[in-house]
Amino acid sequence: MAVTLKDVAERAGVSRSAVSRTFTDGASVSDKMRRKVEKAAQDLGYSPNFLARSLTTRRTKLIGLVSNNFHNPIFLEVFDLFTRGLQDRGLRPLLVNLTDETDPENSVRMLQQYSVDGVVVASSTLPPNFAKSFRDAGVPVVHSFGRYSSSPQVHVVGVDNVECGRMAAQTLVARGYKHVGFMGGPITATSTQDRFKGFEQELKNHPDITLSHSFADAYSFEAGRTEMQRLLNETRAEAYFCGDDVLSIGALSAIDDHGLTIAQDIGIIGLNDMEMSRWENINLTTIHQPIQQIIRSSIELMVAMLEEPDRYPEARLFPCSVVERGTLRPPEGK
Amino acid sequence: MAVTLKDVAERAGVSRSAVSRTFTDGASVSDKMRRKVEKAAQDLGYSPNFLARSLTTRRTKLIGLVSNNFHNPIFLEVFDLFTRGLQDRGLRPLLVNLTDETDPENSVRMLQQYSVDGVVVASSTLPPNFAKSFRDAGVPVVHSFGRYSSSPQVHVVGVDNVECGRMAAQTLVARGYKHVGFMGGPITATSTQDRFKGFEQELKNHPDITLSHSFADAYSFEAGRTEMQRLLNETRAEAYFCGDDVLSIGALSAIDDHGLTIAQDIGIIGLNDMEMSRWENINLTTIHQPIQQIIRSSIELMVAMLEEPDRYPEARLFPCSVVERGTLRPPEGK
Repeated sequence: MAVTLKDVAERAGVSRSAVSRTFTDGASVSDKMRRKVEKAAQDLGYSPNFLARSLTTRRTKLIGLVSNNFHNPIFLEVFDLFTRGLQDRGLRPLLVNLTDETDPENSVRMLQQYSVDGVVVASSTLPPNFAKSFRDAGVPVVHSFGRYSSSPQVHVVGVDNVECGRMAAQTLVARGYKHVGFMGGPITATSTQDRFKGFEQELKNHPDITLSHSFADAYSFEAGRTEMQRLLNETRAEAYFCGDDVLSIGALSAIDDHGLTIAQDIGIIGLNDMEMSRWENINLTTIHQPIQQIIRSSIELMVAMLEEPDRYPEARLFPCSVVERGTLRPPEGK
Repeated sequence: MAVTLKDVAERAGVSRSAVSRTFTDGASVSDKMRRKVEKAAQDLGYSPNFLARSLTTRRTKLIGLVSNNFHNPIFLEVFDLFTRGLQDRGLRPLLVNLTDETDPENSVRMLQQYSVDGVVVASSTLPPNFAKSFRDAGVPVVHSFGRYSSSPQVHVVGVDNVECGRMAAQTLVARGYKHVGFMGGPITATSTQDRFKGFEQELKNHPDITLSHSFADAYSFEAGRTEMQRLLNETRAEAYFCGDDVLSIGALSAIDDHGLTIAQDIGIIGLNDMEMSRWENINLTTIHQPIQQIIRSSIELMVAMLEEPDRYPEARLFPCSVVERGTLRPPEGK
């Protein structure tokens, strides 16, 4: 049923090796030969089987794309950008869902079995040593949205979350809030740990401001809503820096239910600037994380590593910026 | 660098064929031999290379998962359920993003090159002949959320969208609306065509009710918001059946901006019952499409086809039901 390389060689009247060379990147073949072979291949509907070829080239062009949160709408953007970016470079994303996975070693083993050329770990909640386990297994790995470290063990592409925390604190200070809160994501997530660290550090410069903090169970709407409901029944802050946008949207929903007015009674600032934050019925003031640039750079780094697997690990960090929308009161004096 | 089958055979002191049989499903090997081989494999950190094996078994366990809308949050649930469901059965999803693809033949060719065992087309906007092109190429295919046909050309798993349209009409009639509107998704989407057909058919039984209709450009928030803004500046209906939930949420946002009160001034009913519809700040009355069941059944059908590729095409349809939330006025007499 399937058309083979031999069939193409016979039809083109050339050797099998000539057909093979025509379909191998960088192999030498004359223009005339290439045209003959391509014509025969087209006539017969022949496609080179990349997986069979991979046994010779040792390249499958499969890239594992590992995630563990399918309840945060930001990941739809992440998957969109990764899949299109990889496809544009002739690479293919093998999607790995770690939601139910208790043993990350399983996914390392699985991705090795599938002979992926590399792995992108797209998560700020998986521990740094998860990405490292791929490196240890000899698989090129990029940790997108991972923790910045001055001595990175694997390639990390993302933002400086400590700096983002400072930026959130400065924004709330500029608006004259005197009691501010940090409502983080899971306490085990490096992104939440770093954002809190920067937030707390910056507020130390303002001893007149009271800081309270707590952590939600997950980066999800439900976790944000539940945590804010709890906070509203205690002594609440005037404004909160929430761990990310989906937590912020959950918090906004709880505040609304409580009969309070967003911005006027309680301010919220998120982080990510995901598509939904721009939706007019959400209109969230947030810190923009440059997702597109992070993903483009992650893919470029992956492509570079496929050529040079021993590349020295680097951290690529992108600047964030505050996006003013409707969930904080205006800066003082305005 | 990589541990080979030969290394395992040497360490275990057995033949290569014994190692091969140990790692082949259904092949005969004694318990004692299996223990020896597994011990040696574990000691050396050996994993059988599934892709190399696939050349013999002719199975890669890769399943292409094709989608073309990464702006509709429902797809995050779809990807979550598909990836976990496939992983549970030892299958692996190769994610294909057709957002920018102008020539669907490219994806057929690409998935053939990757020797996928089968393809799941998860879309209600791709034309039925797209799924058929995989069948014609000899690749087992399931069209999830595809159009029901009494003579299906490929396996279809989904809902009867004509019936859903009728259900939406009955719901609006029961609430006493006298001017109702259909605000569909793209006019080329079979899901929108069928929902409109059922909606219109049912309303023919109620000549006292006025029906207007229009179509948004895409199943997205922005498309729903833009279309509703346009409608609000014309003669508007009292209640709308929107093509799906994300369009409904866009419409709700436009209504809110216009200074109108949801349910009281204008009613909205969506379709899907995606996670976000349950968010308390959205609280959308909608028609529940049983996504979980559709995806579980799609995977079961794919697994069955891997055993029996010539299986006669079938349509598997699941019932929908109205979920009452806050975006319609109560039924008359209540």
